[in-house]
Amino acid sequence: MRIAMIDDDIVSPDELHPALLDRGVFFGDGVYEVIRSYRGKIFAFDDHLQRFANSLAAVRIKNVAIELVRSRVMRAFEQAQIPDAKIYFHITRGSGPRDHTFTDDMKPNFFLTVDTVPDASAAKEAGISVSTHPDWRWKRCDIKSLNLLANVLARQDAAEKGCDEAIFVDEQGLITEGAASAFFAIIDQKLYTTALSGRVLPSITRKFVLKAASNICLEVIEKSITPNDARSADELFIGVTTKDIVPVVRFDGTEISGGRPGSLTERLIAEFRKFT
Amino acid sequence: MRIAMIDDDIVSPDELHPALLDRGVFFGDGVYEVIRSYRGKIFAFDDHLQRFANSLAAVRIKNVAIELVRSRVMRAFEQAQIPDAKIYFHITRGSGPRDHTFTDDMKPNFFLTVDTVPDASAAKEAGISVSTHPDWRWKRCDIKSLNLLANVLARQDAAEKGCDEAIFVDEQGLITEGAASAFFAIIDQKLYTTALSGRVLPSITRKFVLKAASNICLEVIEKSITPNDARSADELFIGVTTKDIVPVVRFDGTEISGGRPGSLTERLIAEFRKFT
Repeated sequence: MRIAMIDDDIVSPDELHPALLDRGVFFGDGVYEVIRSYRGKIFAFDDHLQRFANSLAAVRIKNVAIELVRSRVMRAFEQAQIPDAKIYFHITRGSGPRDHTFTDDMKPNFFLTVDTVPDASAAKEAGISVSTHPDWRWKRCDIKSLNLLANVLARQDAAEKGCDEAIFVDEQGLITEGAASAFFAIIDQKLYTTALSGRVLPSITRKFVLKAASNICLEVIEKSITPNDARSADELFIGVTTKDIVPVVRFDGTEISGGRPGSLTERLIAEFRKFT
Repeated sequence: MRIAMIDDDIVSPDELHPALLDRGVFFGDGVYEVIRSYRGKIFAFDDHLQRFANSLAAVRIKNVAIELVRSRVMRAFEQAQIPDAKIYFHITRGSGPRDHTFTDDMKPNFFLTVDTVPDASAAKEAGISVSTHPDWRWKRCDIKSLNLLANVLARQDAAEKGCDEAIFVDEQGLITEGAASAFFAIIDQKLYTTALSGRVLPSITRKFVLKAASNICLEVIEKSITPNDARSADELFIGVTTKDIVPVVRFDGTEISGGRPGSLTERLIAEFRKFT
């Protein structure tokens, strides 16, 4: 006899909702995206779909036509009728008995939510506080996977310190990125951000930040900095899909740029606005 | 309007099965155990419950009385009436809208399955083949968490090479452990296995292997070896709850101990049997 149990209830495995046998929960065996719209138009949709396709390929989830994903997202977005929407979606490899190995004929599970994107104007105007946390993540952070426990623990640690984001510091003492954002510093009129590799997500917001920097002739250096560098930086900010650029005015308790968003950061915010 | 979508169906978030909003799938925000019974008796139950409690504490999932977990496992095990059972269970932090941060008042989700443990006698008699894979896992492998995508990808890679287990090799070129097992080598009449740290799971089977080694006066050296060391080892084996000790007779294609289980490995298997 083979049985399953949910909380205190013993049930037959045949009666289980497929979501209870999702490889997403057993292994975090899936990938996701978060996209947003500005005033009724999805921002950088193709970029997000391309990254999603890359993530699917990297974890070898097949049987997913990216055009089907596009049409599902569009259909949900249109039905939701939210001009400034946050759209989350993930695909897991499928549901079935728990087994590390998989076959290519599994039916992937698609899940999506549409919500109003939280208003970020206060954070953008006042700036936010961040705190550092050891980067405990795996070595394939270029894949936007559902293995996010390190991010959860770091973000919770930050919240308990009264901070809005955790900034990961790797074993070499270098900043990689935020728990759910890309990280940027302006030092001597140059923009620093971590180079793309398996250590960071290829952030779409980062791509547009670099474009904005180019537009205002701000030199970009793709190089990780240390927390000490960050504490003495002229300006700091994070980049995240749901809020684009958010100034950082406190780093591990140290006030940055006089506790107010820096002027170059504000120019980048204005420049970014043109893309949206 | 706030909506959700499952595959092609748009639904109200209020109608979603809680498993679809489980932090287990959004973040892998949960921990698990696999235990087994031998002839009607659960093996090392207290050890597994203690490790489970440690994992829960490490990821800060509260509101879980470990004695309740014990009674649930016992009740399911007794009802299943499987003498040689494999019992899997996990607890996630709970279900709710996707948000990295959490509160202590969330209701954790418990899920368990009982199955017949697969017969390992053929593998134990003939030995298995293993292949190496880069250790992409996070830095808190001492926590038995649901973030297992690196393990899935490594195990799949091994399966496609005709191997039964993947052996992780870290960035220093050292073997940590298997994708779902502890790893052991016998070199010059000494037993080598990785020392406990954040790089490996504190394997319960490992604990009993070391006890078995002590019983047969086999010296233990807790030190990681390289794949080259492994290829030239006298004997190799893995330790895993569902099969205890399984000899390794092929390592990345190189035959080990003449392609047959080694004599010290067989003595350890016999010694381990006394514990069960």
